[in-house]
Formats: sequence, C-alpha cells, structure tokens
Amino acid sequence: MRITREFDAPPEKVFRAQSDPELVVQWLGPRGYEMRIDHFDCRTGGSYRYTHVHEGNEFGFRGSFHEVRPASLIVQTFTFELEPDGVALERLVFEDLGDGRTRLVSTSLVDSFQARDAFVASGMEDGVRQSYERLDELLAA
Amino acid sequence: MRITREFDAPPEKVFRAQSDPELVVQWLGPRGYEMRIDHFDCRTGGSYRYTHVHEGNEFGFRGSFHEVRPASLIVQTFTFELEPDGVALERLVFEDLGDGRTRLVSTSLVDSFQARDAFVASGMEDGVRQSYERLDELLAA
Repeated sequence: MRITREFDAPPEKVFRAQSDPELVVQWLGPRGYEMRIDHFDCRTGGSYRYTHVHEGNEFGFRGSFHEVRPASLIVQTFTFELEPDGVALERLVFEDLGDGRTRLVSTSLVDSFQARDAFVASGMEDGVRQSYERLDELLAA
Repeated sequence: MRITREFDAPPEKVFRAQSDPELVVQWLGPRGYEMRIDHFDCRTGGSYRYTHVHEGNEFGFRGSFHEVRPASLIVQTFTFELEPDGVALERLVFEDLGDGRTRLVSTSLVDSFQARDAFVASGMEDGVRQSYERLDELLAA
C-alpha cells in the first residue's frame, strides 16, 4: 500500500511531528481516539508501543525503528496487537518540495495479498486520512 | 524468498544458536569469513550490527528485532550496508518435529522483484547454505 500526501510545512517540521512523541500523540490516530504512548524511541535501532483508546476499548500497536534519517527517512516495522502474527514493513520518505512544502510518501509492505486486503478492509485508510488531517492542523498551529 | 531446513537438535537449541551472539559468531556467514559483532541484542525491540571479514574486506549488516519468541519465532529487519536503501523483513519460524529435531523456515520479504533477483544473483543463497552447514556442525559438537 502506498499513500502520498503533501504538507504545507518544511521536511524538518513534518519529520519532527512524526518522530517526537510529544507531537505524535497530538495527531496520530482517527478523530475521537485518545493516543497513549508506552514508549516511542524514534532512532535507528529504537522501538515503540502505543495504544489508541476509544469508548473504553484499547488497541495496541508496536514495532521497531530499522532506520531513521532526520528530515529524510523512517523505516519501521508495525504490528497491530490483535493480529500479533501480522507484520508490515513501513517506509516514510520526506521529499522537500521547496517553498516550505513537503511530500510524504508512506509505503507499507505486507507478506500476502490477503493481508493487504484485510488492511484496506479494516478502514485503516480512513484512519490514516483522519490522522493526516489532524497533522495538517498541528502543522498550521 | 523462503528457505526451509531441518536440524538434528531441538528448537530450544537451534533458537539459542540463532539468538546468543557467542554462538551466532561461530557459524553465521560463508566459510572463510570471520564474523565480528558490534552488538546483537536478540530480544523484542533490540537491534544488531555485525560485519563479515574476508581477505581484508569488511561487509556490514544491520537491523532490528521486531519480535522474539524464545524457541519459536524471530522477526527481524535486515540491511546490507553496501545497499543502504534495501531492507528485507525476515521471519524465522522454529517448528518442533519431535525426536529432538527442528524445522527452520526462513522467509525474507523485499519490496520488489528486482530486489529479490539481486538477492538471488548475489550468491547469498550459497552463503546461507554454507552457514547452515556450519550450524549443523556447531549443533553436533
């Protein structure tokens, strides 16, 4: 799966919003969900775990940061804990468009078409869109 | 790419040979290569880096451990540092065959057929075979 989106902020700022847990917690996840971070160590060799809480239900996500290049690249793994055997390899590429704008290309690699279809059917795409809208608002604030 | 191999040792022992750096250093890599470990922290959220040294040339490899379940599963990322943008997602499954035997199924997921073909053409497959022969010898010792 590949999602491309442009932001009205320079790469350094978009990267910081993706890598600093104090900022991530303000936008990651669909509207109406509260994000709680267990740990979020966004550096090469680090790892993360967080939950999204909605109407008393808590959903856990975790993974490791394979490589982090400031303002340029994040490669990480991703598992939704309710499907503990599923693992995605995610690559976030930050492209400088000039004029203080950034294109973010997010690619998610899974090991079967079934896993891809399950991902799409889960409504994650809509969750990602809502997340990015919230990120827009954070970057504009 | 998927490589399946059976070992004449129980899962706990095969797992330990894959996860304990003092054992890994004794078999991982083709014959004639010396392995040097920078760090090898085989636990969920850990990471590793090592080099293979051959005739004065040093080749670096690194990645992170997404999940480690003792005697059962290792999910890790893998990058050959001479191709720093290439990342594989590797899954090692340890199956107990009974009678003190183990089947190890190693799956390596890359993001293009080009990357897969480059992997196969690089002779890595032969390197893996030689590694596993060395592992057989270590397990028998």
